[in-house]
Amino acid sequence: MTYGKERIYKKVEVIGVAPESIEAAIQAAVTRARQTLEGLSWFEVGDIRGHISPDGKIAEYQVVIKVAFELK
Amino acid sequence: MTYGKERIYKKVEVIGVAPESIEAAIQAAVTRARQTLEGLSWFEVGDIRGHISPDGKIAEYQVVIKVAFELK
Amino acid sequence: MTYGKERIYKKVEVIGVAPESIEAAIQAAVTRARQTLEGLSWFEVGDIRGHISPDGKIAEYQVVIKVAFELK
Amino acid sequence: MTYGKERIYKKVEVIGVAPESIEAAIQAAVTRARQTLEGLSWFEVGDIRGHISPDGKIAEYQVVIKVAFELK
Amino acid sequence: MTYGKERIYKKVEVIGVAPESIEAAIQAAVTRARQTLEGLSWFEVGDIRGHISPDGKIAEYQVVIKVAFELK
Amino acid sequence: MTYGKERIYKKVEVIGVAPESIEAAIQAAVTRARQTLEGLSWFEVGDIRGHISPDGKIAEYQVVIKVAFELK
Amino acid sequence: MTYGKERIYKKVEVIGVAPESIEAAIQAAVTRARQTLEGLSWFEVGDIRGHISPDGKIAEYQVVIKVAFELK
Amino acid sequence: MTYGKERIYKKVEVIGVAPESIEAAIQAAVTRARQTLEGLSWFEVGDIRGHISPDGKIAEYQVVIKVAFELK
Amino acid sequence: MTYGKERIYKKVEVIGVAPESIEAAIQAAVTRARQTLEGLSWFEVGDIRGHISPDGKIAEYQVVIKVAFELK
Amino acid sequence: MTYGKERIYKKVEVIGVAPESIEAAIQAAVTRARQTLEGLSWFEVGDIRGHISPDGKIAEYQVVIKVAFELK
Amino acid sequence: MTYGKERIYKKVEVIGVAPESIEAAIQAAVTRARQTLEGLSWFEVGDIRGHISPDGKIAEYQVVIKVAFELK
Amino acid sequence: MTYGKERIYKKVEVIGVAPESIEAAIQAAVTRARQTLEGLSWFEVGDIRGHISPDGKIAEYQVVIKVAFELK
Repeated sequence: MTYGKERIYKKVEVIGVAPESIEAAIQAAVTRARQTLEGLSWFEVGDIRGHISPDGKIAEYQVVIKVAFELK
Repeated sequence: MTYGKERIYKKVEVIGVAPESIEAAIQAAVTRARQTLEGLSWFEVGDIRGHISPDGKIAEYQVVIKVAFELK
Repeated sequence: MTYGKERIYKKVEVIGVAPESIEAAIQAAVTRARQTLEGLSWFEVGDIRGHISPDGKIAEYQVVIKVAFELK
Repeated sequence: MTYGKERIYKKVEVIGVAPESIEAAIQAAVTRARQTLEGLSWFEVGDIRGHISPDGKIAEYQVVIKVAFELK
Repeated sequence: MTYGKERIYKKVEVIGVAPESIEAAIQAAVTRARQTLEGLSWFEVGDIRGHISPDGKIAEYQVVIKVAFELK
Repeated sequence: MTYGKERIYKKVEVIGVAPESIEAAIQAAVTRARQTLEGLSWFEVGDIRGHISPDGKIAEYQVVIKVAFELK
Repeated sequence: MTYGKERIYKKVEVIGVAPESIEAAIQAAVTRARQTLEGLSWFEVGDIRGHISPDGKIAEYQVVIKVAFELK
Repeated sequence: MTYGKERIYKKVEVIGVAPESIEAAIQAAVTRARQTLEGLSWFEVGDIRGHISPDGKIAEYQVVIKVAFELK
Repeated sequence: MTYGKERIYKKVEVIGVAPESIEAAIQAAVTRARQTLEGLSWFEVGDIRGHISPDGKIAEYQVVIKVAFELK
Repeated sequence: MTYGKERIYKKVEVIGVAPESIEAAIQAAVTRARQTLEGLSWFEVGDIRGHISPDGKIAEYQVVIKVAFELK
Repeated sequence: MTYGKERIYKKVEVIGVAPESIEAAIQAAVTRARQTLEGLSWFEVGDIRGHISPDGKIAEYQVVIKVAFELK
Repeated sequence: MTYGKERIYKKVEVIGVAPESIEAAIQAAVTRARQTLEGLSWFEVGDIRGHISPDGKIAEYQVVIKVAFELK
């Protein structure tokens, strides 16, 4: 990447959900976002939440992220 | 809905405007969003603003919401 | 514009990058957003960051903005 | 109430859910909180969210409030 | 209104109180503000609080708003 | 005070400065505000800052407060 | 769960501490909360902190979460 | 205290009120909280407010704190 | 200015609008504020927004600032 | 000090701890910071916390401050 | 550690980067900080971001933390 | 730069002051920071403030930035 050149990025907000870990939830969101968006560059983590199953286990992590990609 | 299964949601930010109430402004935004987005699931209210008419009445409520829907 | 009429706006988040100034970065983002979005109405500035070149000059400004436009 | 006298309040966080309006959701939360807490004094509204039904109507408002009451 | 012309607005912070609804509290604040301020243009809602009466009913809504008006 | 009756408060932002303590700075601001404003009711503390004298002593506390009073 | 039915949730704030990971600290907090609270439904992550042992290893993660459960 | 061992804390939010100082209001809240909660460990100060008496003196400080204690 | 002496400042919130730059919008607000307020001392920038003209140019910058001045 | 001249300040974040009061904790932090930093100019208070001793007394105040000084 | 004794901590802000997990990025930052700072005591997690590689995998986690240590 | 490799950055907070513009204040801060810090990489803008001269002109911009650099 060359700095100092005019360019534009867009950010979209997605929520990834996965049972194993916060990282898995982020990866799930990124993987899905890539199906419709080209040139994903970085993500920023927002709220982290999760569901608790009746037996008291964390059933899933729900991680809000913003995914950024360059607009060509 | 089954918890613990990988899935992804997207959030988009819209502003609903309606003269009657905050709730009407939210409903207006949701109704319009549904024309182009499938599977709307929930909303989150952000800033609430409004316009004041010259006779001092609240002319309209402008409510920023984020609308979330599942990406299949 | 007539106040008091139901209407809806959408906001998208973009990052403009330009070497000269914060204003140039905002204008770059708006110019690009307009290629795919009709009826841009206003913007709101979020984070302001930038890259520093090896000789200590500000190489570019990176300005996060939200761009709003009416959904017809 | 006499000001200037030592006294203590406690705040608890509850979420009221009701289909009609934000105000109904707040009232629902306060009514339920009063079953186990004496001397409720005031509330403060936090996040406002809601569920969207499949036909695009707001199915319910979910309002996070803090309810405060004096500890005697 | 013509955009692009130098002009100035002022914002003042008021709290409206009304027993019926959040909207009524906002309107009460705007109505009173208009007695001493000309050219009110818009409002922005801040904190929303309220008082709980001894029988568990919401006695009143207290809504902090900023009211903006043009300085001629 | 009777709850449930329509009424309006205004908040103004002042900064009190005093050498002794945070409380003295707040009292200084309130005392001065009372010279021009009637019916002061409560205050809310915002930022707390201060100046450091050359010998490393805190020369003064600067406390930003909002002072609220009823508009009759 | 049926949406659109009046119901109430309560949130309590707990801090889980565990040496292995952020997820382990969350699970520890949820497991303990379940001993005294029925019907845990979800959690929201707040501050994440940790202790550093003298040899520079992360000795433990301290994760503030809010745990929510329905009040029947 | 031994770091690196699984353990859990709970935080409750209380408001201490005292006429003399911010510190006195915090101590009042802690003293009262200790009557019903064992093992208080630390506090965190939130909003600081106060009441102004008709003669312009600060009648009392109202300090919101969170009190944390270990759940055994 | 002598530090350590009791004194009071007031802050008022204004919005400057100008077509050229963020700095011009701030200066416009300060210039107008000075017509009615004596002893302006400093400003603090809040939200930065702007209007987009139909041809995609930034028509104007709208900068919210707080202006502070000493109360004598 | 002459305004309008290019100059630079640096801020460092320290936490002062003292048993008597919030002010004493701030002064402790400033006094220590001055041993290694020249030209301390002002401080800004961040989080205020404290430890509770087993007998329910506030054992100490822990005040996070940022200390600013000019870089010559 | 003895509570109630005057003492001072300093916080520095670092960003750890690691490909495996959020925890690995924190540990990397702590390990490096310890090379130049003695007596590291705790850390606080700030923003969590990351880079996405061209094949849609999370290439690395970038975690902003504040590391605190006692100033002797 | 190669992503996915462990590395560490540090951020320091400085305030640049310059009479011409926000950009000039940022550049002044970066230029000075570079005298003692190697490998400056990026900056993030925080608070923007300024001084008003007696004739109502903006005498200077004071811009708080965080400057980041890699720790080798």
